[in-house]
Amino acid sequence: MVNITISQASNKKHEGSMTESDQSIHRPTNNLVTPLLTDLYQITMGYGYWKSGRHKEHAVFELFFRVNPFKGAYTIFAGVDEALSFIHHFKFTKEDIDYLKETPALCNCEDEFFEYLANLDCSEVCVKSVQQGTIVFPREPLMIVSGPILICQLLETTLLNLVNFPSLVATNAARLVIAARGQFGTVKVNNQTPKCIEFGLRRAQGPDGGLSASKYCIVGGFDGTANVQAGKLFGLPISGTHAHAFVQSHCDLEDVNHLTLTNKNGGKVQLLPLVLEKRMKLGQLFGEGWLNTNKGELAAFVAYAAAFPHGFLSLVDTYDTIHSGIKNFIMVSLVLNDCGYSPIGIRLDSGDLGALSLQCREIFNDISEKLECPFFRDLTIVASDSINEKKLLSLNKNGHSITAFGIGTHLVTCQAQPALGCVFKLVELNGKARIKFSEDPIKTLIPGEKRVFRLYDENGSPQMDYMTRIDDNVPQVGIETTCFQPFKKDPVKITPSKVDELLIPIWDRSDGAKSRIIGLMEARESVISQIKHLDSGLLNDENTVEYKVYLSQKLHQHLDEVQHELRVRG
Amino acid sequence: MVNITISQASNKKHEGSMTESDQSIHRPTNNLVTPLLTDLYQITMGYGYWKSGRHKEHAVFELFFRVNPFKGAYTIFAGVDEALSFIHHFKFTKEDIDYLKETPALCNCEDEFFEYLANLDCSEVCVKSVQQGTIVFPREPLMIVSGPILICQLLETTLLNLVNFPSLVATNAARLVIAARGQFGTVKVNNQTPKCIEFGLRRAQGPDGGLSASKYCIVGGFDGTANVQAGKLFGLPISGTHAHAFVQSHCDLEDVNHLTLTNKNGGKVQLLPLVLEKRMKLGQLFGEGWLNTNKGELAAFVAYAAAFPHGFLSLVDTYDTIHSGIKNFIMVSLVLNDCGYSPIGIRLDSGDLGALSLQCREIFNDISEKLECPFFRDLTIVASDSINEKKLLSLNKNGHSITAFGIGTHLVTCQAQPALGCVFKLVELNGKARIKFSEDPIKTLIPGEKRVFRLYDENGSPQMDYMTRIDDNVPQVGIETTCFQPFKKDPVKITPSKVDELLIPIWDRSDGAKSRIIGLMEARESVISQIKHLDSGLLNDENTVEYKVYLSQKLHQHLDEVQHELRVRG
Repeated sequence: MVNITISQASNKKHEGSMTESDQSIHRPTNNLVTPLLTDLYQITMGYGYWKSGRHKEHAVFELFFRVNPFKGAYTIFAGVDEALSFIHHFKFTKEDIDYLKETPALCNCEDEFFEYLANLDCSEVCVKSVQQGTIVFPREPLMIVSGPILICQLLETTLLNLVNFPSLVATNAARLVIAARGQFGTVKVNNQTPKCIEFGLRRAQGPDGGLSASKYCIVGGFDGTANVQAGKLFGLPISGTHAHAFVQSHCDLEDVNHLTLTNKNGGKVQLLPLVLEKRMKLGQLFGEGWLNTNKGELAAFVAYAAAFPHGFLSLVDTYDTIHSGIKNFIMVSLVLNDCGYSPIGIRLDSGDLGALSLQCREIFNDISEKLECPFFRDLTIVASDSINEKKLLSLNKNGHSITAFGIGTHLVTCQAQPALGCVFKLVELNGKARIKFSEDPIKTLIPGEKRVFRLYDENGSPQMDYMTRIDDNVPQVGIETTCFQPFKKDPVKITPSKVDELLIPIWDRSDGAKSRIIGLMEARESVISQIKHLDSGLLNDENTVEYKVYLSQKLHQHLDEVQHELRVRG
Repeated sequence: MVNITISQASNKKHEGSMTESDQSIHRPTNNLVTPLLTDLYQITMGYGYWKSGRHKEHAVFELFFRVNPFKGAYTIFAGVDEALSFIHHFKFTKEDIDYLKETPALCNCEDEFFEYLANLDCSEVCVKSVQQGTIVFPREPLMIVSGPILICQLLETTLLNLVNFPSLVATNAARLVIAARGQFGTVKVNNQTPKCIEFGLRRAQGPDGGLSASKYCIVGGFDGTANVQAGKLFGLPISGTHAHAFVQSHCDLEDVNHLTLTNKNGGKVQLLPLVLEKRMKLGQLFGEGWLNTNKGELAAFVAYAAAFPHGFLSLVDTYDTIHSGIKNFIMVSLVLNDCGYSPIGIRLDSGDLGALSLQCREIFNDISEKLECPFFRDLTIVASDSINEKKLLSLNKNGHSITAFGIGTHLVTCQAQPALGCVFKLVELNGKARIKFSEDPIKTLIPGEKRVFRLYDENGSPQMDYMTRIDDNVPQVGIETTCFQPFKKDPVKITPSKVDELLIPIWDRSDGAKSRIIGLMEARESVISQIKHLDSGLLNDENTVEYKVYLSQKLHQHLDEVQHELRVRG
């Protein structure tokens, strides 16, 4: 049986390829993503090609990386949507051309070159790409850009900028989600699956360092963001309550004396007297500590409850979590509950988050039991102090009761490794393979335009990615395939139970057979599902397993020949 | 003699304060820098203030950081220009308000609140700031934002985003420049001061991760960037020549057979025959190695020389720097020289940069002598492979002949520490000091609105930054001043020879006395000059010296009183 299963990526093809017109491709999110967002040498090289009359020679460039980030064994590819927007809208403005003409490095270039640039767009370029949110591995092409060499060359820097950070932050997010919820998403805390929320805008590397992080952490499995702009632009769930400043800004209970609430019978009640009554009662039941909490903080919680009775979540560590914050939260929560509202929970932002969360949960359970208030058992505990992968793993190991993590700096700046090293390399020109040698085999290019297939076992787990030449035989389900490791001799054999093609056409003006780039939420689901099927050795901190990216016999032979030829020609 | 010297910052005041109208403040560079580029909790807190009727209470917020980045002893403050643009243009659009109304967290808020937001701007806010490109230290206020609490609160996240990364990258750039050129800019290589050029766009954290780095590395002392968009937007020097792809794209000498050049007599000459003649001559003089260089590479250099005879700089490491690249460069350079052009030099992008640069320089000097070509002595050698501070220091220690560094990933992503931790804290409300306690004294706020002065010794070197209360005595030249370390008892005395006030008004709609934010090049000069005057102990890797940021007697006493009062009130 000859049978190629179309990948998660490409089985979405019918949804988009024919119905979605180019007009629906939005402009790049950032208004500065234009053909000028590039390195000057792309334009000087462009002039070099043009001046020799070689600017229309047919080139094939591959975008790939050589090493997984974070000392890990996998990467999530992202940023494809913005890359496509850039390609679609690629056009120098008159102002751009005027600027280039006056640039000292270009001021001796011929006018005809600038006329050529002014009329240039991507209509002669074809782009294939791995789908948004696909797990990918070193050395395999993630994008293949082919067309006249000059225009392809001009895309390099911008495309790299548009996929490097999104892929890095999506990978980082996936790692954090796995640390918080486990590979199969089965970790439960207080019967809830812990949520991961992005909190990092203020520490991000510039405005769209923040926006890109908010957007692509969703692809990695995050549940939402605090970034309002990202919520609006990309339709993401946003969340947020209050900060220390809100607590600090309240000094006295008199400040909130006038605040009222609509209770479950529709009547208006004054909030503070009810809270003070509750405080008195709690003091009698559980001791004087309940009467001596910070009054400014209590006032702040009353004010916040009056404003958000449906969404009452308090930051409890401004003064003292156990002696003040949690007690003030409980007083106000009990009143809200009496009035028919369901309080949400608390946020911890300092101290030993694991121990504090357990202490708070115990207090909640105790109150629940003693005051017969079952809702106290299900409260959310958010934690948000410099959380990173290591801290999450250690919390899960040592015990905690945190049901949502707010993750900022470590997520958005990818502190553990702030750059992914995708490169964009010429692999073919006028139908002839190009190669760049290096003493370091990992840096030697695999020449020529390729196809990439993912081969799965009978359980749906990917076993290997298999690269072929463009005109090669396609690996087939149930048929034994011979695969070679690059630069090694002995083949291995594999009989796939499923085969997906990874590179799908996303931009082609000539034949129109383009695939749709899936949305963020769809990509998120795809990532979660792919991770479940990965060999768990790939997710280990120790990287006990390395994923195989192998070559077809024909490609392997071609690599040998080209290497030999170029070495001989010198 | 009562005398306050106005700071580098504020002595520029007269240039801008009265003549520059608000209209000249451009929109934020990134179109997404709007009031929505914030954390949702700023808006929920805003509703909390509004709902209690407290949204117009007069608040004072301070922006500062607690720890210098990169384990260093200083920070360069930057991003003030974009922060001011944001403040000036702060206005929710109708679309923004519609989005907020439908956000689940805000859907129960009263309509009048959204009307209030729709009409909100920064006309009631005052902002003081340290000037762009000022060296600053932990705990001192870098910006003071005062006005109605709601609007000030809404500025927090965006302001932090707009200054955190620019300050981080400017600091990183300054450190790299010091590593390359020394504190006093006196390091010479081949009689040239080595240049630092930013090359990092492709690895940056998003489009304006790249643009911010290109822009603010200039403030830190960089000489230019490869980023064309940054060149256009900010008027920066841009540079760039060609990449490996250009070399790889050339296979045969026939490809460049047709290329011509205008020689010094105005006649057109065919380039390749002249180059081949040179090659023959060099082969006869120096041996067969000159005849066996890579032909594709030679073709590429000929093509590049034909396109850029005035700007001939070759990347020489595509195949083999010493056996091929440098020889091909020399052949073409000699022809260009014969035709009346001055070749620029070479770029090294791999291998042992120090050793290779020395080897290339030796070859250049040898050629210069043997062929009587003096221009070969002055060629530029650019190096650009994963350069960071450590590598620069080691190159300078072990010897090299690199006259320009192209610095990418490590500069733009601030790999050694990718986030600066500026915070924005409430220090005063309705004229009363606010404070947030912490077990960790470094996290305890210094309450109340302040002024900050820099006190200099007789050599013009800063000795201490001195914070006072807003209505305090001003430190004066030649008068002994008593200064206290925060949370310590014993004062020190200092008699300044010069006093600068660091915080200058940059935004005030009421009295109009605003100072101009200096331009990037002016800030760059200021940074270079400030660094020359710093105690060299502050620049050491070992941080042998810590810069003093002390308090006036009155502020010190106030801190004590507020701490005491808040502890007692509990």
